[in-house]
Amino acid sequence: MSDLSPMDLYEKLTAQGDTVRSLKAQKSPKDYKAGCPPVDGEMVLDNGAAPEDGDDQVDPWNVSSSSAKGVDYDKLIVRFGSSKIDQELVDRIARVTGKTPHCFLRRGIFFSHRDMHQILDAFEKQKSFYLYTGRGPSSEAMHVGHLIPFIFTKWLQDVFDVPLVIQMTDDEKYLWKDLSLDECHRYAVENAKDIIACGFDVNKTFIFSDLDYMGASPAFYRNVVKVQKHVTFNQVKGIFGFTDSDCIGKISFPAIQAAPSFSSSFPQIFGDRTDVQCLIPCAIDQDPYFRMTRDVAPRIGYPKPALLHSTFFPALQGAQTKMSASDANSTIFLTDTPKQIKNKINKHAFSGGKDTIEEHRKFGGNPDVDVSFMYLTFFMEDDERLEKIRQDYSSGALLTGELKKCLIETLQPMIAAHQERRKLVTEEVVRQFMTPRKLHFN
Amino acid sequence: MSDLSPMDLYEKLTAQGDTVRSLKAQKSPKDYKAGCPPVDGEMVLDNGAAPEDGDDQVDPWNVSSSSAKGVDYDKLIVRFGSSKIDQELVDRIARVTGKTPHCFLRRGIFFSHRDMHQILDAFEKQKSFYLYTGRGPSSEAMHVGHLIPFIFTKWLQDVFDVPLVIQMTDDEKYLWKDLSLDECHRYAVENAKDIIACGFDVNKTFIFSDLDYMGASPAFYRNVVKVQKHVTFNQVKGIFGFTDSDCIGKISFPAIQAAPSFSSSFPQIFGDRTDVQCLIPCAIDQDPYFRMTRDVAPRIGYPKPALLHSTFFPALQGAQTKMSASDANSTIFLTDTPKQIKNKINKHAFSGGKDTIEEHRKFGGNPDVDVSFMYLTFFMEDDERLEKIRQDYSSGALLTGELKKCLIETLQPMIAAHQERRKLVTEEVVRQFMTPRKLHFN
Repeated sequence: MSDLSPMDLYEKLTAQGDTVRSLKAQKSPKDYKAGCPPVDGEMVLDNGAAPEDGDDQVDPWNVSSSSAKGVDYDKLIVRFGSSKIDQELVDRIARVTGKTPHCFLRRGIFFSHRDMHQILDAFEKQKSFYLYTGRGPSSEAMHVGHLIPFIFTKWLQDVFDVPLVIQMTDDEKYLWKDLSLDECHRYAVENAKDIIACGFDVNKTFIFSDLDYMGASPAFYRNVVKVQKHVTFNQVKGIFGFTDSDCIGKISFPAIQAAPSFSSSFPQIFGDRTDVQCLIPCAIDQDPYFRMTRDVAPRIGYPKPALLHSTFFPALQGAQTKMSASDANSTIFLTDTPKQIKNKINKHAFSGGKDTIEEHRKFGGNPDVDVSFMYLTFFMEDDERLEKIRQDYSSGALLTGELKKCLIETLQPMIAAHQERRKLVTEEVVRQFMTPRKLHFN
Repeated sequence: MSDLSPMDLYEKLTAQGDTVRSLKAQKSPKDYKAGCPPVDGEMVLDNGAAPEDGDDQVDPWNVSSSSAKGVDYDKLIVRFGSSKIDQELVDRIARVTGKTPHCFLRRGIFFSHRDMHQILDAFEKQKSFYLYTGRGPSSEAMHVGHLIPFIFTKWLQDVFDVPLVIQMTDDEKYLWKDLSLDECHRYAVENAKDIIACGFDVNKTFIFSDLDYMGASPAFYRNVVKVQKHVTFNQVKGIFGFTDSDCIGKISFPAIQAAPSFSSSFPQIFGDRTDVQCLIPCAIDQDPYFRMTRDVAPRIGYPKPALLHSTFFPALQGAQTKMSASDANSTIFLTDTPKQIKNKINKHAFSGGKDTIEEHRKFGGNPDVDVSFMYLTFFMEDDERLEKIRQDYSSGALLTGELKKCLIETLQPMIAAHQERRKLVTEEVVRQFMTPRKLHFN
């Protein structure tokens, strides 16, 4: 099928009810989500907010589940009041863009949304929008999970041809971590290099450090103050679990993450337009910030941002938690060597296989809790091959060692290629991306 | 005595134990403070914070006393933990600067301080400092009380030859008042014209709107975030009386008023120096902001700002409250005509005189509760004449109408002269003062 374009392939598959369809039929988005996700979100903070009940804990600072399958994302959709990305929406995105939906959409890795149909309605009427995502730069080391929102955002930028702003919340990291302002700012610049290495178009992408941009844009500060006027301590206490012992910087920070949702924060890009709608691809743990933002938006005369939520990227040890840069054993870094990748996967990746080869051959493995299989759902582009692996692993035809080998052979060249691209990102290139300027915008 | 310089006069008077001395001897700073003050502070907010007990209420949003003499400033010094500006300090300022202390110092209008001796110690060793004051621009209309900190700050700038930064907290006014950002910013620029008309040296003065400067100076925002990291909600609740229903903008605002206390907020003036000490002349109601600032300073590696506190400028109706721009009857505006000034004083200025001329002649008036006399202590420069008025009014030789006439004849030319100077303040002049730039600094 290599002579078919991805869109041809998608249509063919969809029409014929073959692998893609069968993946969908056999594993509903819910199953897939339960079976694999945990994408590590961007802008992840590190302080605790109490879980509301016996549910999975999902907030900007903590993600944990008691299930080896990971967080129950269907329950989360109900709890957060968002909408499921169903087959109809995936098909509509394909129709509107004329492109095969990204595998993160096809496989339910981006599984939840707010107002995505509104974005598409407007887009069909030639009304453009812009993308906003971000990252909390708490260390130089980014891991593979951190790439998920950026890989998907780059795809959105390509298929919709829209501008993108990427917020590096170095101020937030200073407030939450035992780091100096200079360290946080340096991490912002270093992390920007990894983000740029994902292939963003410099003519359509503005990356900014809060510490820099706040001091360079009265328009941005004005929107921060507007949001700050319309959110009470009671509200952020309810949303984020802040307490009276939290510093006033943490308490007011949500306004800083909210402000880039409004086009008037970027007059260099949007001129005096305050009505360009924003679409935010992010991990579901960041939704509290944007629930707050959506609540404030109409009260300050701005459109509500739309959202696309991803699942979490699981830790090597299992989907009960997401991958975290602070635990080297649970994590595959973007700086890891092929050997390190191989060793970490072989040594730490939680297996859904049986204890002995004999048992495995007889009863088969469980891909729903197998971290190597989950990672493949993120990074193996070939739907048919992925489905074959799932079937073979489930049947016992494929052993854990073989599955891990398959993941290793997928990740090693992917990360090596990232490292090569990152080497090309000079200080000058970073400076270009991080300079407030006009972007290509229709 | 017109052939003597003010310093000669001060020394002569001090040596001879004549009027100045007799003013001091008969009316201790306490008496003077009790008898006249209420200077309306700058950066005055408009929200309520509960008084701690039966004391006078004095915080950035409310000033009230049950006494016709006004706030008990000696009690306030004890409550706030500041130090009294005693004769020794006034004399030392005269000695160090070689200039007659300003009448606001001689008459106890600036009555309290923190670390002023430290400033003078350093100054004697050729170590310079800088001045910081400000104003909350909640309307176009400034009144005579608003001039007090600026008149005194200009004197300090002249005698110490130091740079000055003036913060216009338009962001704060937006947060506390039902005003748009644009209105607050416009008021900041309009108020800056009145401030400039006080005669500040453009080579030594930087006036900034928060809404502008925050978006123009990464260094300023960095200091704001530093302060915000080191102050908890519990602390601002204790200091300012904020509640859970207050917006997060109010809660974090104190850091924005704190940040100009640190020289590193102004790299264009101080280069990379973080150790230039700050001296803040302000009304005593602003002290809570700077108690907080002084608590944070050593924890973020900066020197504590020193302070000089003024009393409040009383409302026309009496010293129980300070003059407020929101009550036109209690207020003499800088835009008032000579006729308006005359009418307001004659009609509204609370009198310490007796009910009939006969009684007044017999028993005398009480200057300690007489608003016209209080105003003269602010604005009549001639110590001897002021003392004579006090004696004559107390004895009954001077009638209320005559006292009021004396005040009217003092204020009318003073305000007319202000209006003339303000007319000369063009947009271009404002732009000069409000542009971040290098200042004359030794």
